[in-house]
Amino acid sequence: MTSPDRHGADVGLLSPLRAGTLVGSATGDRAFLQAMLDAEAALTRALSRTGMAPREAAEAVTAAADADRFDLGSIAERARADGNPVIPLVADLKAEVDARHRPYVHRGATSQDIFDTAVMLVARRALIPILDDLERVAAALAGLAAEHRATPMAGRTLTQHAVPTTFGLKAAGWRSLVLAGRERLAALVLPAQLGGAAGTLAAFTAHAGQDGASADAALRLPTVFADETGLAEPRLPWHTLRMPVADLGTALAIATGGLGKVAADVLVLSRTEIGEVTEGKGGGSSAMPHKSNPVSATLIAAAARQAPALASVLIASLAAEDERPAGAWHAEWQPLRELLRLAGGAADAAATLVESLRVHPERMRANLRLTRGLIASERAGIELSQSLGHAQARRTLEEAARRVVSEEIPLADALGIPDLDPADYLGAATALVDADLNREGTP
Amino acid sequence: MTSPDRHGADVGLLSPLRAGTLVGSATGDRAFLQAMLDAEAALTRALSRTGMAPREAAEAVTAAADADRFDLGSIAERARADGNPVIPLVADLKAEVDARHRPYVHRGATSQDIFDTAVMLVARRALIPILDDLERVAAALAGLAAEHRATPMAGRTLTQHAVPTTFGLKAAGWRSLVLAGRERLAALVLPAQLGGAAGTLAAFTAHAGQDGASADAALRLPTVFADETGLAEPRLPWHTLRMPVADLGTALAIATGGLGKVAADVLVLSRTEIGEVTEGKGGGSSAMPHKSNPVSATLIAAAARQAPALASVLIASLAAEDERPAGAWHAEWQPLRELLRLAGGAADAAATLVESLRVHPERMRANLRLTRGLIASERAGIELSQSLGHAQARRTLEEAARRVVSEEIPLADALGIPDLDPADYLGAATALVDADLNREGTP
Amino acid sequence: MTSPDRHGADVGLLSPLRAGTLVGSATGDRAFLQAMLDAEAALTRALSRTGMAPREAAEAVTAAADADRFDLGSIAERARADGNPVIPLVADLKAEVDARHRPYVHRGATSQDIFDTAVMLVARRALIPILDDLERVAAALAGLAAEHRATPMAGRTLTQHAVPTTFGLKAAGWRSLVLAGRERLAALVLPAQLGGAAGTLAAFTAHAGQDGASADAALRLPTVFADETGLAEPRLPWHTLRMPVADLGTALAIATGGLGKVAADVLVLSRTEIGEVTEGKGGGSSAMPHKSNPVSATLIAAAARQAPALASVLIASLAAEDERPAGAWHAEWQPLRELLRLAGGAADAAATLVESLRVHPERMRANLRLTRGLIASERAGIELSQSLGHAQARRTLEEAARRVVSEEIPLADALGIPDLDPADYLGAATALVDADLNREGTP
Amino acid sequence: MTSPDRHGADVGLLSPLRAGTLVGSATGDRAFLQAMLDAEAALTRALSRTGMAPREAAEAVTAAADADRFDLGSIAERARADGNPVIPLVADLKAEVDARHRPYVHRGATSQDIFDTAVMLVARRALIPILDDLERVAAALAGLAAEHRATPMAGRTLTQHAVPTTFGLKAAGWRSLVLAGRERLAALVLPAQLGGAAGTLAAFTAHAGQDGASADAALRLPTVFADETGLAEPRLPWHTLRMPVADLGTALAIATGGLGKVAADVLVLSRTEIGEVTEGKGGGSSAMPHKSNPVSATLIAAAARQAPALASVLIASLAAEDERPAGAWHAEWQPLRELLRLAGGAADAAATLVESLRVHPERMRANLRLTRGLIASERAGIELSQSLGHAQARRTLEEAARRVVSEEIPLADALGIPDLDPADYLGAATALVDADLNREGTP
Repeated sequence: MTSPDRHGADVGLLSPLRAGTLVGSATGDRAFLQAMLDAEAALTRALSRTGMAPREAAEAVTAAADADRFDLGSIAERARADGNPVIPLVADLKAEVDARHRPYVHRGATSQDIFDTAVMLVARRALIPILDDLERVAAALAGLAAEHRATPMAGRTLTQHAVPTTFGLKAAGWRSLVLAGRERLAALVLPAQLGGAAGTLAAFTAHAGQDGASADAALRLPTVFADETGLAEPRLPWHTLRMPVADLGTALAIATGGLGKVAADVLVLSRTEIGEVTEGKGGGSSAMPHKSNPVSATLIAAAARQAPALASVLIASLAAEDERPAGAWHAEWQPLRELLRLAGGAADAAATLVESLRVHPERMRANLRLTRGLIASERAGIELSQSLGHAQARRTLEEAARRVVSEEIPLADALGIPDLDPADYLGAATALVDADLNREGTP
Repeated sequence: MTSPDRHGADVGLLSPLRAGTLVGSATGDRAFLQAMLDAEAALTRALSRTGMAPREAAEAVTAAADADRFDLGSIAERARADGNPVIPLVADLKAEVDARHRPYVHRGATSQDIFDTAVMLVARRALIPILDDLERVAAALAGLAAEHRATPMAGRTLTQHAVPTTFGLKAAGWRSLVLAGRERLAALVLPAQLGGAAGTLAAFTAHAGQDGASADAALRLPTVFADETGLAEPRLPWHTLRMPVADLGTALAIATGGLGKVAADVLVLSRTEIGEVTEGKGGGSSAMPHKSNPVSATLIAAAARQAPALASVLIASLAAEDERPAGAWHAEWQPLRELLRLAGGAADAAATLVESLRVHPERMRANLRLTRGLIASERAGIELSQSLGHAQARRTLEEAARRVVSEEIPLADALGIPDLDPADYLGAATALVDADLNREGTP
Repeated sequence: MTSPDRHGADVGLLSPLRAGTLVGSATGDRAFLQAMLDAEAALTRALSRTGMAPREAAEAVTAAADADRFDLGSIAERARADGNPVIPLVADLKAEVDARHRPYVHRGATSQDIFDTAVMLVARRALIPILDDLERVAAALAGLAAEHRATPMAGRTLTQHAVPTTFGLKAAGWRSLVLAGRERLAALVLPAQLGGAAGTLAAFTAHAGQDGASADAALRLPTVFADETGLAEPRLPWHTLRMPVADLGTALAIATGGLGKVAADVLVLSRTEIGEVTEGKGGGSSAMPHKSNPVSATLIAAAARQAPALASVLIASLAAEDERPAGAWHAEWQPLRELLRLAGGAADAAATLVESLRVHPERMRANLRLTRGLIASERAGIELSQSLGHAQARRTLEEAARRVVSEEIPLADALGIPDLDPADYLGAATALVDADLNREGTP
Repeated sequence: MTSPDRHGADVGLLSPLRAGTLVGSATGDRAFLQAMLDAEAALTRALSRTGMAPREAAEAVTAAADADRFDLGSIAERARADGNPVIPLVADLKAEVDARHRPYVHRGATSQDIFDTAVMLVARRALIPILDDLERVAAALAGLAAEHRATPMAGRTLTQHAVPTTFGLKAAGWRSLVLAGRERLAALVLPAQLGGAAGTLAAFTAHAGQDGASADAALRLPTVFADETGLAEPRLPWHTLRMPVADLGTALAIATGGLGKVAADVLVLSRTEIGEVTEGKGGGSSAMPHKSNPVSATLIAAAARQAPALASVLIASLAAEDERPAGAWHAEWQPLRELLRLAGGAADAAATLVESLRVHPERMRANLRLTRGLIASERAGIELSQSLGHAQARRTLEEAARRVVSEEIPLADALGIPDLDPADYLGAATALVDADLNREGTP
């Protein structure tokens, strides 16, 4: 067997997020090869079920459809000549079965039928760990939200302390994004593809006539094929109706983006000066032994920076001319695979991250005090307005705020009022957390 | 009033697709200004309904909330200082109401509450003509699909004639994309935004306490506010939980992309050498009086090239740190507006395009004959396989194909068989059209 | 005159960065209209200079080419029919000149000749303030780098304190990016466009023959036209050879990205907990009177998030089919204008930002102490290695680092060595600053 | 050794363009691993040259720096923990050398020094075949341009025949884009990276002091290191000054985009109905034996659809906070590698494409006649204007154009003039070709 390395094989050296993960291996070249073989086998079985192929052929093709029997590197190189790997694969698959079964290999199909079906199979398989990981993330976040529903911390806007919030409300927000991303992925419809050369089922129809199959056998074939693959039944051949790919790509990018919000916050809160959370499994440094880096958050953030651009390629491929476009289809392959890996790697890392996240309420409280009460100035202003009126209250407060900064005194002193504990100005934060967790808690 | 032009006002000179359309005016700066005012008025009314503001204040703010009373250019310029237009707008709105009502303007809210709500209001208003236009497009395409269900034409893959299809099947495919895009837009949930400075409803809570409103008034406020705006109720304040924007952006880009497929096909079929369709309202040329350009398809194609990149900015903004991010939020504004315009302009143009599309079945038939039967070679191969076996049939066919090209003879002659009419090799095309139209036809 | 507002005119309400700026007005619809008129006038003058039009016609067209005499809104709306605004503009321009001059308006040209030339004129005009602002930014940064060449601060990697650096080195790095971005913009070649309908100069050639102009008049025309516009001479008509646009777009995005690095750092250093720099002209908050937000950095960061996606549309438009593409050209217009505005707005804001930036060396020193010496642990490790050997030194240091964290003691104490002042571990930072400033300082 | 396949190794199954190419193997994981080892070896040699390491250590590390001695899969998996592959690599490299040399492995460096240098080494190596292939493409295009300088064909705008052009002018335009893309790649400055933990060279400075090296040894180190790698000397450590990466990424995308224009035209001209060019090595179809698909053009077009989005990720990474960003750096790795592969695969395919392109002048002539002279109507109009005046000439021509279409008669007949040969209306096409080839021909 050709050594993958001769072809510049990638094992994930530049993708630490997916190296060694379930999604990583579920989206490798071998996984795609197997999925193409699965599609070919499903086709011959579907032909058999509709009276268009002998049962022996279906059994033979199914038995031969094992990726380990094929030379991945050779197929990859031969794909260049015709522009896709299905053509050399079909040649090799035919060689693996007895001559009498060969006419039933790929019978009536076009390369795109097999490739698109394989992509959907790979996606379905890769989505399993992704959905699982997102569920783990959401569960861990529900725990954090409940535990810290009333843990006060600084709310920050445009990098500045604004008013207090709670860590539980932040965690509840993260969870809502993770669940929304998961929901979009779980709702995806992943259809099989079967249409023949131009999506008319013409060759199947012709074969059906010859094989004495019933008149509507060809028309039923996509349904039976979908059933054999376990994928959804397509409404129409979708060779150039690429909603399934655009939907899949955007859902993956959106799910990754939701995790990107979690990462963005963890990165802020992990800063040396802030120190409100620490990754439980932080990374080291080659130069500085003391460092504990928020590596998971960093890698998730990196994924969230790549995914939107990749999704844009898939959305752009909707504008696919003809019955098979000259470029738009081929442009989908790598970006879609990479999106599966980014989303999968990010979900895996996020599960680790949130399950082992260390939260430091005492640092949150200490930081809340940094502005000497200014973080609760909104509340002071509302109270002053009662006695002084709106305009005068604002002026008084602005003057006091200046003194807090220049004289380094507490706002309460500057205003001549009792101590202002920012932790008393949480508004409806805890109620919002409770309502949100309850809503989701009762499925 | 400041002349817009001084500010380099844009009226659509570089966006022929939206100039003068309903979506164009629904997304102009004045429309955004009005929506912000609508949000402010809805807020004071919601405060009033929850016992946190006098009814007179609500009436006064509602009366004052008329964009024509405000200086758009001045607000735009003053927005620079604080980074958003709500702050100068609030100042101007207060100046428009009696001093006693001023405390109830923007009371307890943060700029983003008003701006995000305004964006959702603009989106909802802009979506009305978009959804209408997409419905028109789908209806016209259903008509074309039915009329041409059996009109034979060349199926083309990788730019080459492959096997025949029908124009009806192509139109049915277009329609399925348009409906899918419309469905995604119609399913969008557009929530109001209300959370106060850090999304805790803290100022509302404090005001409620002072105003003697009931304990849960602040917590009910988002619901009442959403009701006053007509938008959906938010689950949580979503200042940095940007699913609504990411969903809106991707749905707009996907809908535009679906129209992009229609345009891509019309552009191919309109080519001088192909001539199978003509835009009913083609454009002229400044240099060549005879030309009739597929202008609508061109502009739709241009929209479909821009939308994915804009959507990628919105997906990327999901990774918004803190309780209000320093950049990710501001980066959404223009791309989202532009996406509304691109989708809206494309839908408007697509309605014109498909309703007035001229289809030329005779050119389709003539083009089908261009390859002298090779377009039906798949069928000939299947028939030959019966007698000669698969491998010999392929060799015979390849040899015949060579002669067809070199000797310029019909394939039927090269094979010594009766005339092959490509129009007889339509497979299940008409059945696929019928099934698809019937499925959708019964709502 | 049609009111712009009826068309949903934009004055910059959603673009606080450009509202009221020089770039803003230099890129407005009226500026584009004027540039198209300038291109038409330059063409007639060029025709006159090459003997293909009377001098009176050139004078008449030049006199008429004043945007204030044209109805911008009407031209924008009529652009829809033919897909570009040049066609209605030419009609209106002809109406502005005496009948005998009309044949010399737009004579021999195609719409794209005028539009592309206008885009380059707009770009050249908009680049003037952009280059100026970037020069101001670089000059201010040179001052900061020199002043703070040895001001110690924490170097941060993956959000964590790593080893010390100086603020001057940071400022020098910012400057190098700003200069690199400026250099790319200053090096741009902005060519005029002139080719006629398909880029062959055919109509000019035919007119030259009729007008008795010399044989090579048409071939010289692009050079003379470029001279009249002040733009560079094109090597070939570049209707579908879009390097000038791709180069312009990427240079703008790269320049904006460089400013984005400045903004990203300012946003980190401005954080309440870090407080090492403050924007001199920070923005306020509608809800919290005490806040001073890093508004300029925020808006620059927002620009840097949008520009790359817009540039990607322009790069994609390189793949423009035929002699004028059906979509790729039209897709350039809005993204290119928006890139000019983002770069221009960001440069303007960056000038304000760096010129008024307040730097707080005492906070930098205080933050350097936060890790109780760990930020200099690398240095301690190197010293320990001398006596203990590499492996033992690392173990000792790791153990000491643990005690620093758990016992809250200085690293020096944990190691039993004299106080470690992080400010003594600046490596070659000052030398790097000096070398860099000197290199650039001698132009 | 760990089997790559266990990690879901990719050999190019989804990238037919690069499978088996020089660029493909030059950018594989093993190539990156070797480049990192080369960087480590160069560092120890540079330390030795500056008096900071013994010569034996340099020799030992250089000898050990052979990728075949390392377990790629293991390094990839261990990279997850710390976020980059350099940390496990350094551990493994140390294990490969004698204990006394280990302190000189990676001494003073940070992971990013090694990784960035490796990326630049990979880029430089990958650019060699890319530049060669682009030169081949340009040379072949120069030949086509010269040969077909006067071969008439239809100029097409917005998909419609406009006026005639020549195939030579088209080929000259393609060549100018290819040369422009090549020029941008050839002009790239690819610097080595060396700065230590925060870019201050601090550890090198400390080591230099200990090792008794001269005072400025650390400051000279980057220069010596660059010399050892063969890369350019960096002005400043560029850990977060990412111009080199942004420039490289955009140049690759622009070069790919230029090839995308060639592909876009070949795809149009290859259409069954147009048939003006044929790929010499077209691809087959799994379903239709007669088809000859423009596979190279298709794959190049697919590359040109992906590259701009990937470049946008790299431009966005300019906004990298701190001394090492938490995400922006990591987000560069895969997109940059993929850009090298897309550009390289496209250049390789383009060389095949243009060197074997079959041009069909007779089809070009036949297509020129399709509009019965309308393609030369511009010329007829200019002539008519002489006698009839501009306005009347246009009316006459429009009426004649209508009759040409409705009565299917030649334009010459409709106008009552002698035959109009479109091949006589080539304007300055040949002169433009000659001038362009001559300009470039003298290097």
